[in-house]
Amino acid sequence: MGKAYDVMAATCPSRTVLHRIGARWTVFVITALADGPMRFTQLKAYIRGITPKALSETLRAMEYDGLISRTAFGGNPPRVEYALTPLGHTLLPPLSALREWAETHVPDIERARAAADLRDS
Amino acid sequence: MGKAYDVMAATCPSRTVLHRIGARWTVFVITALADGPMRFTQLKAYIRGITPKALSETLRAMEYDGLISRTAFGGNPPRVEYALTPLGHTLLPPLSALREWAETHVPDIERARAAADLRDS
Repeated sequence: MGKAYDVMAATCPSRTVLHRIGARWTVFVITALADGPMRFTQLKAYIRGITPKALSETLRAMEYDGLISRTAFGGNPPRVEYALTPLGHTLLPPLSALREWAETHVPDIERARAAADLRDS
Repeated sequence: MGKAYDVMAATCPSRTVLHRIGARWTVFVITALADGPMRFTQLKAYIRGITPKALSETLRAMEYDGLISRTAFGGNPPRVEYALTPLGHTLLPPLSALREWAETHVPDIERARAAADLRDS
């Protein structure tokens, strides 16, 4: 019996799921919300360099996929908080491992790029 | 003492590394090469639906970053093989976990999307 889902199959829905996780800012939002809910402005300050447009598009896509929840508390101005759902929480271990890989292997990647530049010049 | 690298910092080089790993097809190429070297046509057949252009751009970027090696064996037509480098091998555990997550949670994501569509209609 084969696997139910296989990312290598062109039309498998797991592929769109994987592409979505790999989307430019998803990993940053998941990591930012690891310790608890945040408001839009807090997220924007935490993920330095993200534009408001990119952040709101990312949040909308992640809410659609059920990875985060959006709660409006009313008030004036209205308070809105974003939080990981239980499903979003399950992404923390694999994405933390990836973040750790990136932060650990910067020198290796930079060495490889410098060597490639030298080779091509 | 702080960490040397922090993906949340806008100008940290670890961020470009993380973005590169998250690039659309990187995870597919790393997974495809897990069991040994492959030629271009083999990779293209394995990663169903990838265009030749997307595959060659991905391979070039990954070679530049030192994640894969490209070996030409000569012959006519020349034989060229792509293989994981030791650095590329270290990406296998975190990326396999991510692939497994995607293949496992398809029903959860689809349920969330259906619920969102229902809510918005």
